[in-house]
Amino acid sequence: MPEKRMGKRSWAFDSGVRVLGCAAVSGPKEGEGQLKDVLDHVYPDLYAGEDTWEKAEKKMMEDAVSIAVEKAGLQTDQVDLFLAGDLLNQNITASFTARTHSIPYIGMFGACSASMLTLATGTVLVESGFCDTVVTAVSSHNATAERQYRYPTEYGGQKPDSAQWTVTGAGAGVLGKGQAGPVIRYATIGKVVDMGLKNPFDMGSAMAPAAAETIQTHFEDTGLKPDDYDLIVTGDLAKVGHPIAADLLKEKGYTLGERFQDCGLMIFTPEQEAFSGGSGCASSAIVTYGRIIDDMLQGTLERVMVVATGALMNPVSYQQGESIPCIAHAVTLEGRGNV
Amino acid sequence: MPEKRMGKRSWAFDSGVRVLGCAAVSGPKEGEGQLKDVLDHVYPDLYAGEDTWEKAEKKMMEDAVSIAVEKAGLQTDQVDLFLAGDLLNQNITASFTARTHSIPYIGMFGACSASMLTLATGTVLVESGFCDTVVTAVSSHNATAERQYRYPTEYGGQKPDSAQWTVTGAGAGVLGKGQAGPVIRYATIGKVVDMGLKNPFDMGSAMAPAAAETIQTHFEDTGLKPDDYDLIVTGDLAKVGHPIAADLLKEKGYTLGERFQDCGLMIFTPEQEAFSGGSGCASSAIVTYGRIIDDMLQGTLERVMVVATGALMNPVSYQQGESIPCIAHAVTLEGRGNV
Repeated sequence: MPEKRMGKRSWAFDSGVRVLGCAAVSGPKEGEGQLKDVLDHVYPDLYAGEDTWEKAEKKMMEDAVSIAVEKAGLQTDQVDLFLAGDLLNQNITASFTARTHSIPYIGMFGACSASMLTLATGTVLVESGFCDTVVTAVSSHNATAERQYRYPTEYGGQKPDSAQWTVTGAGAGVLGKGQAGPVIRYATIGKVVDMGLKNPFDMGSAMAPAAAETIQTHFEDTGLKPDDYDLIVTGDLAKVGHPIAADLLKEKGYTLGERFQDCGLMIFTPEQEAFSGGSGCASSAIVTYGRIIDDMLQGTLERVMVVATGALMNPVSYQQGESIPCIAHAVTLEGRGNV
Repeated sequence: MPEKRMGKRSWAFDSGVRVLGCAAVSGPKEGEGQLKDVLDHVYPDLYAGEDTWEKAEKKMMEDAVSIAVEKAGLQTDQVDLFLAGDLLNQNITASFTARTHSIPYIGMFGACSASMLTLATGTVLVESGFCDTVVTAVSSHNATAERQYRYPTEYGGQKPDSAQWTVTGAGAGVLGKGQAGPVIRYATIGKVVDMGLKNPFDMGSAMAPAAAETIQTHFEDTGLKPDDYDLIVTGDLAKVGHPIAADLLKEKGYTLGERFQDCGLMIFTPEQEAFSGGSGCASSAIVTYGRIIDDMLQGTLERVMVVATGALMNPVSYQQGESIPCIAHAVTLEGRGNV
């Protein structure tokens, strides 16, 4: 049996766990951006037909799960486990979605890194035979996040350019050992990195060192090199944080060049006002489950590493003077997936 | 290779994953109760030497981890993964503890069910070879939970008798394939059960159906019977909820009798005012990692099922008129563990 653990923090998967189906849904602003043609559904407003923003976010995660399961050719009652997380207090979006779909449920928390945390953990469960089929999902919503972390959007609070725009949307993936879909090859689990930064309007700078550290650890653990990937993409470092991560990696001897991108810069067009770029669980999720997997199925991308970044603070820890603990979890996907 | 999945939602472990060490720490009130003689550390007040309650809760989880790792004969840098959760917004206790101990970290959320969620998931990771050693931890703190979910305790808000007392403390366990310690045999993952109850001052009644449903599923999935266990213990149903769970199981043909207990009723003495009984992640954690594993090592308990219950709402979902989605995750432990 080949080694499942590699180095300090990486897991190798060799049984052919695939993304059998996936879905990305979004709010209207995201629907007018760079992902316009690859989103499975775009809601006309932030309410998505519900009477509160929180219920709208839940509706988006519910729909993403339904669409992903349908695209995998399954029914929700054929799914063994639902692994999900979001940004709202007590993970309510994920928990209420678990209620709607009535799938056995494990809640996960990694802030915006939850997209790859659920994908890595779900792959372990399928690879090891404890589950046949796992659905992963994450979400974020601009208005629920603003209200919870900062101020209700109606206040019209001003922000500096280093702030980011929380992406409204949800992404879901169906994992199993099927016949088609990209194969999940490696995961590198993050460690908390905290450089002492405290500015909640500059999360990109706070998270960049965690992203760089996980990418470096991935290369050290697996023996792979930047050239082995067509695309290495961070979750939501945006304009300010992404160059910092590139510089930190260069200092360690890893020059990633043009293949190094950021999901937060792949959602909105330059004309759309979004401060430094997109953030939130949905940032990496709608890019991965919308754009990247689509490109892999088309054959234009072959080997991809998604490094989802998360800032693990809350408003109370910030008010108590704590700096921002950050983390990044990486998952790598391979191949067009036809066997 | 024996089947890892049993029935709908149960996992069977046969590689001898053990609790190599564990620790339970608590606040002063818990330290004067029924667990007095088995707690690893009792703090003299709710601040535990820190300047805020949130930092005190973090200190408790940090200490529980340190003590558990030491009791397992290890150092924290020998641990592969930290799986932890708590009740605070954005899991800050777990995340900041991960920063302190610098162990690769996966955050989990299951409200008070996080104790068994982390134990079940940690066992999968060790059993399947992705990790050699995993540390699990959960915590709760009366004053941080009251402030966050209800009102700051200084307001002196009144509560009905059906309310519960959030336990102050933390529990941690070290999982690995060592030579001694109880063996983890089965886990049964919960499904959201929501009977439409909305009263946040009667969580026991809301969670009881989820506990009963998971226990019933465990028996159906594994073919085991109530007689196969010396103790079947729920996490925090307390005086109001626990008899409801017993009645629901009786209706389904499972009479559990005296072996059916509740952790929320095993912490405080009848003389201590604690409303209906204890609640919070620390309720099932300090009973399991303090009392139960101690009794198993002494040989007075042989086969135990811990069914940790969780209410997956938050104050916003409650204010928006939502009922309380509940879940229960079960883990079974076996044997004195000496090989």
